[in-house]
Amino acid sequence: MASTAGSIIPCKAAVAWEAGKPLVIEQVEVAPPKAMEVRVKIKYTSLCHTDVYFWEAKGQAPLFPRIFGHEASGIVESVGEGVTDLEVGDHVLPVFTGECKECAHCKSQESNMCDLLRINTDRGVMIGDGNARFSKNGNPIYHFLGTSTFSEYTVVHVGCLTKIDKSAPLDKVCVLSCGISTGLGATLNVAKPKKGSTVAIFGLGAVGLAAAEGARIAGASRIIGVDLNPSRFEVAKKFGITEFVNPKDHDRPVQEVIAEMTNGGVDRSVECTGNVKAMMSAFECVHDGWGVAVLVGVPNKDDMFMTKPMNLLNERTLRGTFFGNYKPRTDLPSVVDMYMKKQLEVEKFITHRVPFSDINKAFDYMLKGESLRCLISMDE
Amino acid sequence: MASTAGSIIPCKAAVAWEAGKPLVIEQVEVAPPKAMEVRVKIKYTSLCHTDVYFWEAKGQAPLFPRIFGHEASGIVESVGEGVTDLEVGDHVLPVFTGECKECAHCKSQESNMCDLLRINTDRGVMIGDGNARFSKNGNPIYHFLGTSTFSEYTVVHVGCLTKIDKSAPLDKVCVLSCGISTGLGATLNVAKPKKGSTVAIFGLGAVGLAAAEGARIAGASRIIGVDLNPSRFEVAKKFGITEFVNPKDHDRPVQEVIAEMTNGGVDRSVECTGNVKAMMSAFECVHDGWGVAVLVGVPNKDDMFMTKPMNLLNERTLRGTFFGNYKPRTDLPSVVDMYMKKQLEVEKFITHRVPFSDINKAFDYMLKGESLRCLISMDE
Repeated sequence: MASTAGSIIPCKAAVAWEAGKPLVIEQVEVAPPKAMEVRVKIKYTSLCHTDVYFWEAKGQAPLFPRIFGHEASGIVESVGEGVTDLEVGDHVLPVFTGECKECAHCKSQESNMCDLLRINTDRGVMIGDGNARFSKNGNPIYHFLGTSTFSEYTVVHVGCLTKIDKSAPLDKVCVLSCGISTGLGATLNVAKPKKGSTVAIFGLGAVGLAAAEGARIAGASRIIGVDLNPSRFEVAKKFGITEFVNPKDHDRPVQEVIAEMTNGGVDRSVECTGNVKAMMSAFECVHDGWGVAVLVGVPNKDDMFMTKPMNLLNERTLRGTFFGNYKPRTDLPSVVDMYMKKQLEVEKFITHRVPFSDINKAFDYMLKGESLRCLISMDE
Repeated sequence: MASTAGSIIPCKAAVAWEAGKPLVIEQVEVAPPKAMEVRVKIKYTSLCHTDVYFWEAKGQAPLFPRIFGHEASGIVESVGEGVTDLEVGDHVLPVFTGECKECAHCKSQESNMCDLLRINTDRGVMIGDGNARFSKNGNPIYHFLGTSTFSEYTVVHVGCLTKIDKSAPLDKVCVLSCGISTGLGATLNVAKPKKGSTVAIFGLGAVGLAAAEGARIAGASRIIGVDLNPSRFEVAKKFGITEFVNPKDHDRPVQEVIAEMTNGGVDRSVECTGNVKAMMSAFECVHDGWGVAVLVGVPNKDDMFMTKPMNLLNERTLRGTFFGNYKPRTDLPSVVDMYMKKQLEVEKFITHRVPFSDINKAFDYMLKGESLRCLISMDE
């Protein structure tokens, strides 16, 4: 164990004191890990839309002060009682959803929606004892997604940590712990396009581009990008997108445009916007007989997906996915491996880089739509 | 070639002269098969809801006089030019949808929705020359589904005929050419329940019971039958149904009842009613993480399937199927084979039997809901 094991660690964290206000770098105390918990020294973290969404706290119950952040890479500082899978010095990716390895979902080969550690955006404490491990002047600071990686040290349930190869560069694989794997897995694990097939990707943000990267890796012959923002088209070419469709350029439903471009529809589609109309278009643009549409984007809770049943009966398949169907502990190391083998190109997703002290700039880049991923370096 | 080859054959057929009126056994003329066509001596036929639906002609353009019938078994009498896959004396099942073996669908391993010979309920003539092969006193009589098996002889496109093992009893395998294979294939080819899994079947008519039979064959541990008619429950037990749910017995959605019975939902569901509300229930009653719902029943054309996108994003799959995803020529012989190997129990579907002269009794049995399948013997 490191010399800090068992002690409270004072360190810097970016605290969100209230909704939508810039984060403040504060000195906080991080308590030692309790049973089944691990304390991790974060090396790199990056900003995802989900952080911004809950920081803005529009439409959710606000929970502040809170330490956001869930895409990250780090090194195990110490482990709590009962932790046998990880040891001090292991390299890990904290993940916003977990894998207990004991529930029906973890035991199913098909699901990654762990009953115990499934994503919970409302919880601000550790599940073991219902308390926070972060505090300042004795007052607790809430966790976010069980990860809270905008801190030099954080405490995470062992089921939410992926042990990775120590040779993997932490400033690259950092971005694999959420959005990139979500899009990549949606294509590779769920849509499963065959070599030479046609794929449509709805939404060309980081998740959609990762879905396109999956289609490129699978050997798709045509990858059609759909987005309302034409400025995204140039960047998207780097991710294998071969054609672009802007629904605003057409006076008929985009599914009809795509069906015409592809002699009846694409073989696969992946929806990464969360807009329910885009979901319906993504479903209806796949070819009858064999088309598969995969939904990734998270909708508003009152949205309703609607389609004529004949669109299904004509042998189309509609599937949803969560975190690209990757089990965090069991499967995510294989994504790191794809990067190490140069199959998956991670670098092109990292468009910006800032020191931890400038973390608010990462928020600015994302809010302006300038960045795919902004890497935040904890040591700088 | 038989001595009748090349000649018009005068024979008996059950002609529907107008919508909803009893069929009339008439002497008709059956022209020889043209290019890519085959003339078949029908040995047995059975009645399916689709015959009744188009005979009643409520909501469709009426097309009369017409010879209905599409579930049947028979023997090749003669073949037209270009037919190389079949010869005189071959045993065949006429099928309401075809397999040209040349289009994109036929070449796809996933689809059975042939571009050339896909089901067409409006067409009353042969696709080769646009004429009928049936006539009486020189006036054409329309075909139905390219099969028109309510006739001692019929002419069928070679792509709509399944060549079967000559040792298979024609009075049993007759019923495999439509409904039974549709339900069976929906489960075995599309839902694919694993051994020991739980399956819900919506609608306990012949197609639903065939879907249950598929679940029984797959080794499902619990098969929950859902129907509004409790009189169907006793019969359903023979088909492997282990539990029954009548939505009328509950004051909450049936998907909630099923979820409670199964600790979160069934592993697979198969919807065989065509009622759009049943479709939504069938989808929402499958377990998150791995549940697959398969739609078989044909809806009204204005129906709209609706569900909250989160039901999909929680890793449920929704698929539709057509004819159980069986390719008529390539795959259907394997279903006959399952019967010959005593894996599939066909006899229990055949609840009634009438001579051809009493064909209208088959309509009565079905309209009263008394029969699963009524076999019509052409030689009696």
